[in-house]
Parts: sequence; C-alpha cells; structure tokens
Amino acid sequence: MTKQNADWIAVDWGTSTLRAWLMAADGTVLERRRSDSGMGALAHAEFEPALLALIGDALSCDRVIPVVCCGMVGSRQGWAEAPYASVPCAPPGIAQATQVAGSDPRIAAFILPGIKQNSPADVMRGEETQIAGVLAADPDFDGILCLPGTHTKWVHISAGEIVSFRTFMTGEMFALLSGQSVLRHSVAAEGWDEDAFENAVSDAMSRPERVAAALFSLRAETLLNGLSGASARACLSGLLIGTELAAARPYWLGQAVRIVGAEAIAAPYLAALQAQAADVTAIADEEITLRGLMRAYATLPETVE
Amino acid sequence: MTKQNADWIAVDWGTSTLRAWLMAADGTVLERRRSDSGMGALAHAEFEPALLALIGDALSCDRVIPVVCCGMVGSRQGWAEAPYASVPCAPPGIAQATQVAGSDPRIAAFILPGIKQNSPADVMRGEETQIAGVLAADPDFDGILCLPGTHTKWVHISAGEIVSFRTFMTGEMFALLSGQSVLRHSVAAEGWDEDAFENAVSDAMSRPERVAAALFSLRAETLLNGLSGASARACLSGLLIGTELAAARPYWLGQAVRIVGAEAIAAPYLAALQAQAADVTAIADEEITLRGLMRAYATLPETVE
Repeated sequence: MTKQNADWIAVDWGTSTLRAWLMAADGTVLERRRSDSGMGALAHAEFEPALLALIGDALSCDRVIPVVCCGMVGSRQGWAEAPYASVPCAPPGIAQATQVAGSDPRIAAFILPGIKQNSPADVMRGEETQIAGVLAADPDFDGILCLPGTHTKWVHISAGEIVSFRTFMTGEMFALLSGQSVLRHSVAAEGWDEDAFENAVSDAMSRPERVAAALFSLRAETLLNGLSGASARACLSGLLIGTELAAARPYWLGQAVRIVGAEAIAAPYLAALQAQAADVTAIADEEITLRGLMRAYATLPETVE
Repeated sequence: MTKQNADWIAVDWGTSTLRAWLMAADGTVLERRRSDSGMGALAHAEFEPALLALIGDALSCDRVIPVVCCGMVGSRQGWAEAPYASVPCAPPGIAQATQVAGSDPRIAAFILPGIKQNSPADVMRGEETQIAGVLAADPDFDGILCLPGTHTKWVHISAGEIVSFRTFMTGEMFALLSGQSVLRHSVAAEGWDEDAFENAVSDAMSRPERVAAALFSLRAETLLNGLSGASARACLSGLLIGTELAAARPYWLGQAVRIVGAEAIAAPYLAALQAQAADVTAIADEEITLRGLMRAYATLPETVE
C-alpha cells in the first residue's frame, strides 16, 4: 500500500488551534490534522517546531513543499508578520503573502495577510480567507457576508472585492457574561427558548440603550420569578445579537446577506435576520477556510524556493 | 490601660470582603477590622466561624452583643436568607431583619434584607444600607442617588422611601473587557485621557447601538494607529458609562443627582453627568455603609436575646 505524498499543505493557524490539510495538487484532501498549538500559546521560536510536530512526517528531503497559512500566525506576535492589505481589495493571494525566511528547507511557508480598514478602524486575520472560500464557490457574489464567531464580521463584497467591514465582539461578550459575570448563576450552559430569544432581539433592536439595564434583569428575573437557565441563555444571546443587528443595520438592510459559519453559531443570526424579513441565507461549509487556502494556492507561481 | 468593650458590632459582609466595626452605644467606632472571608468564598456552615475569627475576642460571656449585618450574607447562599423587602419602602431596619437562629450565645445576629423591584425585575443587597447612610445625614433628600460600582445602582428617593431603581453591570463589564477580552492587549491598567473619555461618553449617548462596534475598534486603533493604553482605557470607560447614561436618562434628566462612592469610581460619572449639565454632586463618605448600619441599630428594641 503506497501512501500518496502531499503536494502542498494548507494551514489555518488561529489563536487557539492549528489545523493542517495535506493536499494533492488536484485539490484532493489526503489527510486532516489538528493540534492545540494555537498562536496564543507559542513564543516566536516555537512556531516552526509546532508546525513540524504536526506535519513533519509528510515532508521529503527531495523537494520543497509549499505551505500556505492564514490566521493569527501572521500577526506581530506570530511566526512572521504579514502586513495587512487595505480595503478595498480582493482576498489576498500568494503575491500579497509573506514568505517565512529561514524556515526548514523542506518547506516554503507563505502567510497570507489580514485586511485592515482605516476608518472606522477595523482589522481581520483569517476571515479574509473564509471570504476567499465563499468567492471560490461563487465568484460573482455581490452583497453582505456575516461571519459569526468570537468576533463577528460583517463584510460588504462587490466586484470580487472586500469593500468595507465591521467587527462585533458579540461572541466574546456572550462567553464572558455567561461564563464569568454574575449572570453565570442564571445562564445555563445549554438549552434554548426561541420566543425569549426573538423578544430579546426585538427589544434590543428597538431600544439598544436598554440592553445595559436588561442584562442585570436576567439575574433578577432568576431570583424573583424563576426564569429558567435556558430562557436566560436565549435572552442573553438575543440582547447581544439584537444590539449587533441594530448597529449593523446599514450592512444588512435591503441587501442580500449570507451567513457563513457552523450551524450552531449561524442559527440564531439566521432566525434574527429572518424575523426582520431580511434577504438572508446560510452557508454551512465547515471547510470554507480550506476553500480559501486552495484559492490562494492556485495563485502560486510554478517555481518556489 | 482599659480597653472599652464594644456595645454592638456593625458588619458589612459582601461577596468578596467581610468588614466589621466594633461600636460603642454612642456611635463611637472603637475598632475597624476586615477579612477576605467574603460570602462568595464560604459554605453555609463557615459563616459563623468566619465572623468569630474576626470579632470573637471582642465578645463576652456576660452579655449578648447585637451584630447588625448587611450585604450578600443575606442571600440564599449566605449565612441565613433575609427575604427582600419590596419597593416602594424605606431602607429596612431591625424590624425587617432576619435574626440568625442558633448562633453563638454571645451574639444576636441580625441580617438586613435587600430590596426587590418586580417590574422591571431588579434586586439590591447592601446598597439599601448605603442609601440608609445617605438618609441618616440628610433625611429630607428627594432625588436620585447613583451608587457606582461593579453593579451600579440608580435609585429614586422620595419622602424617605426607595421608589424605584435600576442596576447596570458597567463595572463588571469594564473589568471583564479590559482584563479578559481581546481588549486586554489595548487597555492599560492605569492612566487616563479625559478628552477621549468625554468623546466616548458623548458618542455612546447619542448612538448607543454603535458601542457594539466601537469596542473592537479600540483594538484596531491600537494596531493601526498606535492608540495609547491610557486613551483606550478612558475610551472603554466612556463607551460603557455613556451607554449607561443613555439608558438611565429617565433617572437623571432634570433631577437632583448625588453620586455615592469613593472618589476614583465616582469621578468619571461626575464628569460625564456634568458634561450633560446635570444637577449633580458627589458624596465621598467611605463609611456610608456604617452610617446605614448605625441607623438600623438605632431601631433595635431595648432587649434582644
């Protein structure tokens, strides 16, 4: 049994996770691997050893294998800084990438840049490659992408370019408030209440300033009226997403919106936008980042060193 | 040298700290003590030992000393549950307190209740005693008290009663965002920028929904434009306090407002409200809770058992 050698390696290297795909030149995924060696856990000199620990056995002394990386690995505290591209721009390809100097001779490692926006000030690292993945499947898409997550991005795409974007810390706020604030005593780790969610979204969208007081009311409702942990969880999510939708209204109102993300995280955004009668669909491609890395690999010149 | 015996003991027992004052009947403070045995660190059976560890040497087998407590010690997870009083009501006295059953025979321990509001749902435990302290000094006060802290309270006082109140998690949000979110890389632990603070308050008050996006911009401004840690700290504080002031407008607009709290925490609220031309003054009495406990002690019947 002969194992096929990888022609190149795709790498999604975020703050907490390192993911790698061993790839054939024709786009076949030969193998998927991951480790906990995220960028946040590594000092500068530890990046290459962490990568080699994950994919070293797939390398050969006979040739140089391209490794195409995206994500926080390109930040100032990463393996090598990949300076931001500026909006408006297409998702960056290899021509805009930073090649890591002095790396293991068996690899040629490229780090795709993130994207910046000067006013209002905003940045992304990693999401530009998810966007490239969407455009790989639908090059003519014109409209709004919503990429929900720890830091949700709203992105205006036109003529194949990222025109503008905004970041909301909604996912991180939910995690902090439900896990570490006084609300941790009220919010369950699981469970849902769709009516409570939709009411909270509606309240937050119509009077966003009231959210500041509505948060502590979740605690009081638990103490005084026996609000369930599942309802409190849905309410908290609804208040935060409703505030986000109020602020992101110029993005989604009257626009074609696609939500890009795993079903669990995309579902509340989808429900909230549908309740606003927005023109919205969801793309549940768990390997959208891989599609973007493949699109970038396709821009690689024939010869790398 | 004879040491004067305490006639009663005042206790402020919050989530993280236990404070006790050994008191003479005439209101003289004989001694101040404190420990880290806050309610949050104690199981049910550990409350009395924690109290005796702090004040046991001041007790005598010859008589029963009243101990008047306020704060989270009266919550369901505390020493003994002191059921909430309901608005509208005066700050509770001993008649509304819960006497701890089966305690050490040398003490008669009373726990003052917190206060609840059914709609909108809200609760306080401890602040009602600070309010009592304000009314002890100024029984005719009619207007709004703002008690800034981890959970800031806005309280409407009229005819000696607490009429209504609202809680904002502003202090806790600031601590979580500046200490544990991605903004920890941008926000300095100290330093201030008054202009940045005032602009952020003004922005948040006029467009509160924009705060959801403005938060991540602090990170982007650091990365792209070198925003200083002190300015980011003032901006974050201003965005959160501005949102709170937008939501609390019905409380402070056209009302006499007194801010009750230590100078460091009261100062940004004072500045923000003064910028709105509000009728506001600050009361910087670090022992306002003690004044409230003294007011409650004054309602104690002659004989306790």
